[in-house]
Amino acid sequence: MSTDHFGIRPGEVAIELPEAFDAGIYFIGRIRTPWTTREQCPKNARESDAPCTIEVDARYAAALTDVETSSHLLVLYWMDKARRDLMLQAPRHYAARRGTFSLRSPVRPNPIAASVVRLLKVEGTRLTIVGIDCLDGTPLLDIKPYFASTDAVPDAIVGWHAAQKS
Amino acid sequence: MSTDHFGIRPGEVAIELPEAFDAGIYFIGRIRTPWTTREQCPKNARESDAPCTIEVDARYAAALTDVETSSHLLVLYWMDKARRDLMLQAPRHYAARRGTFSLRSPVRPNPIAASVVRLLKVEGTRLTIVGIDCLDGTPLLDIKPYFASTDAVPDAIVGWHAAQKS
Repeated sequence: MSTDHFGIRPGEVAIELPEAFDAGIYFIGRIRTPWTTREQCPKNARESDAPCTIEVDARYAAALTDVETSSHLLVLYWMDKARRDLMLQAPRHYAARRGTFSLRSPVRPNPIAASVVRLLKVEGTRLTIVGIDCLDGTPLLDIKPYFASTDAVPDAIVGWHAAQKS
Repeated sequence: MSTDHFGIRPGEVAIELPEAFDAGIYFIGRIRTPWTTREQCPKNARESDAPCTIEVDARYAAALTDVETSSHLLVLYWMDKARRDLMLQAPRHYAARRGTFSLRSPVRPNPIAASVVRLLKVEGTRLTIVGIDCLDGTPLLDIKPYFASTDAVPDAIVGWHAAQKS
């Protein structure tokens, strides 16, 4: 972990994490992006139209059956560079500190990121997608079909964020 | 694991999973729902308007700061009763077998579920929400604010599912 990028800023609050994990996860592939430092990453996934690649391990190839029929996917991945103990954070680009569960920051007890991506192409175990903002080589955890009926809430509001913009 | 509920059906395909996990996760709370058997659970989260409760462990209380300003949350939780080795599945309510990554089934290499919920109330470390379909006592992994700007894609299509309905 680089403390240059993931250290504590004034006002941030860390806790002691539990001594043991409760369950284990597998890295099932890697995400290939143009970004190799945190500063290069888009601030959020809609900021870039750069096509990225999801490389799924050969072991899981059969699970990709029918994935090509989806226009969009919900991709879960592991922010392996992020510290996990901050409860209040002061992100660089926001004025105030916020609770971790009111932020999409990679810093959280379980650093699992969730991004909605547009699927361009499936070739074997390689998926070409648009709409992800992570570092090159980020471990993949899961791929899910995105169902507009349950996943799309166009009128949802994040109050603190809306107030800040206005 | 109950093989009555999570056994293999004809046509389903299992693989050998890796020998070791790549990372560990913490259960940061529990989800309280009215459903204590898998058969009772709604088929998907939009089928029920039953208010449910997310109980966050006291350790993480500070991370809930500002969460009450969100109308909707993306909740990640751990489907701890599900087997993890099926790559092709034949869900009861669908005619054909499908690849795991084209289904929202709890059965997957990393059984992390993602649900968009409507937030009704925050009282201390208890969140009252609508829109979750899991068993009572399901372990909580993460709470994220739902941003319509990046998370809502109302015109997304899951082709195999659309074809089946028509």
